[in-house]
Amino acid sequence: MNKLLIVGTVAFDAIETPFGKTDKILGGAGTYIGLSASFFKLQQAIVSVVGEDFPQEYIDLLTERNIDITGLEVVKGGKTFFWSGRYHNDLNSRDTLDTQLNVLADFNPVVPEHFKDADVVLLGNLHPLTQSSVLDQMEKQPKLVVLDTMNFWMNCALAELKEVIKRVDVITVNDEEARQLTGEYSLVKAAAMIQQMGPKYVVIKKGEHGALLFHGKHAFFAPALPLEEVFDPTGAGDTFAGGFAGYITQSENISFENMKNAIIYGSNMASFCVEKFGTERMVNLTKEEVLERLHEFKALTQFDISLEEE
Amino acid sequence: MNKLLIVGTVAFDAIETPFGKTDKILGGAGTYIGLSASFFKLQQAIVSVVGEDFPQEYIDLLTERNIDITGLEVVKGGKTFFWSGRYHNDLNSRDTLDTQLNVLADFNPVVPEHFKDADVVLLGNLHPLTQSSVLDQMEKQPKLVVLDTMNFWMNCALAELKEVIKRVDVITVNDEEARQLTGEYSLVKAAAMIQQMGPKYVVIKKGEHGALLFHGKHAFFAPALPLEEVFDPTGAGDTFAGGFAGYITQSENISFENMKNAIIYGSNMASFCVEKFGTERMVNLTKEEVLERLHEFKALTQFDISLEEE
Repeated sequence: MNKLLIVGTVAFDAIETPFGKTDKILGGAGTYIGLSASFFKLQQAIVSVVGEDFPQEYIDLLTERNIDITGLEVVKGGKTFFWSGRYHNDLNSRDTLDTQLNVLADFNPVVPEHFKDADVVLLGNLHPLTQSSVLDQMEKQPKLVVLDTMNFWMNCALAELKEVIKRVDVITVNDEEARQLTGEYSLVKAAAMIQQMGPKYVVIKKGEHGALLFHGKHAFFAPALPLEEVFDPTGAGDTFAGGFAGYITQSENISFENMKNAIIYGSNMASFCVEKFGTERMVNLTKEEVLERLHEFKALTQFDISLEEE
Repeated sequence: MNKLLIVGTVAFDAIETPFGKTDKILGGAGTYIGLSASFFKLQQAIVSVVGEDFPQEYIDLLTERNIDITGLEVVKGGKTFFWSGRYHNDLNSRDTLDTQLNVLADFNPVVPEHFKDADVVLLGNLHPLTQSSVLDQMEKQPKLVVLDTMNFWMNCALAELKEVIKRVDVITVNDEEARQLTGEYSLVKAAAMIQQMGPKYVVIKKGEHGALLFHGKHAFFAPALPLEEVFDPTGAGDTFAGGFAGYITQSENISFENMKNAIIYGSNMASFCVEKFGTERMVNLTKEEVLERLHEFKALTQFDISLEEE
């Protein structure tokens, strides 16, 4: 089985949506990525850091999913990264209520020996120097490196971000971030500019409006599944990235054609994530449900216009 | 050839976008619908009204496209409907600067005798009573009636709007209008409620974010084509409707499967409309360009995940 190496936060979240609120629950980009990737045939390891306050039951939850946690540092006496946010009524925007970096402030990722030859590396949203450090530790060039980032790093560590962007094959950003990174309003133009910065594949996440994949002159679009109810968007982008990277890792195929399938899988996984608070839906999800929903994605997008008859 | 009957405004527009501004140019929902539908094999007639100030060259432009104008009333001494608007920088929203109803204020649509047996009727965005009046004049039940409307009529003529909605097969509204009409934020729920009002097919237009087609428990999504530049969104929704209705009329097939093709065609036609000011792009468009872009839509949306291998 192929190996997927993930670096990303493992954290506590407290979430408020129009539908309710949670106390501190399991969260973090690395958690969502790992849970999502666990639906594919692969070996995966997560590199992250938590404090001594992190419950064993959450660690068990990861290992039960066959997520290797050799690279999950537990800092004695330390406190786990905590984020708290409140979503607006349309669920498309949110206010951050609290961010406590805690052990994340001094995080030095250590890649486990047996994952220094990983086939696919997914650099979750973290400081660009942390992302670079993971790449520096690899003993062979991965077949594919995927990077997720956000506007925060564009504001406070742009030079470092541009350095790590040079080294990756795929970048995932949302539409506003693509515009901020390039100064281009048109997503087509922004994606072309980002490709000149390094990554030959650009994924632009548009939340409820789906995701676009750009490669050279080619574009592919994966819609979000229209849902009766979106309960909590937290982690949807990371779950998308985990589905994308998980499918690529499983299929051993980094062609553009296969990346189309991968972003459909990403969108599929994300459609579950938003149905419950936090990781709840991902934890109880079955492979059968994933497969069933793929049929819905096909029905939603596939058509049969004969181009010859015209 | 099958017959398509269109009712909709034929008007003057003055448009400002971040890229420039126009004087009074040819506009109106009926104009955009007719131009778009003219790319299909069908007979079409437009029912509308203009003033004596409406130039012969614009009338010629319609007739050269084989649009029957028997039902286009020219009011002696009257002035043509005029709309003026300014788009914001993101082109997603606009301010109306001026609206002069002029001859539209007393518009009584008269359906030409030879189109009272039309196969498809497209009721463009007009007062609901005007839309109803067209249906009243039909001598046989059309195979398909498509209605477009907007929030304005929900605000000032809701009862009349609900009456005409009962009588149609397909409704096209944007996402905000679907929410306003039903009081439901979720588009899935809103579409289900609208189906209970009458139309068994609900098309929700989301502009640059594509369009959704709902029918019972089924949904289909057509993306907007990612464009390097959107120059002027005026008429895009009407051009979409014209492509939808034009394709249905040509293909004589009102199944849900064929409606999928129809909204892809609608999205295809709309992708051209926004590339130039007003009707300019539609007037110079060729069938070859339309066909070529259909290949782009296929590449943008079609994927090949084997559901058996999992």
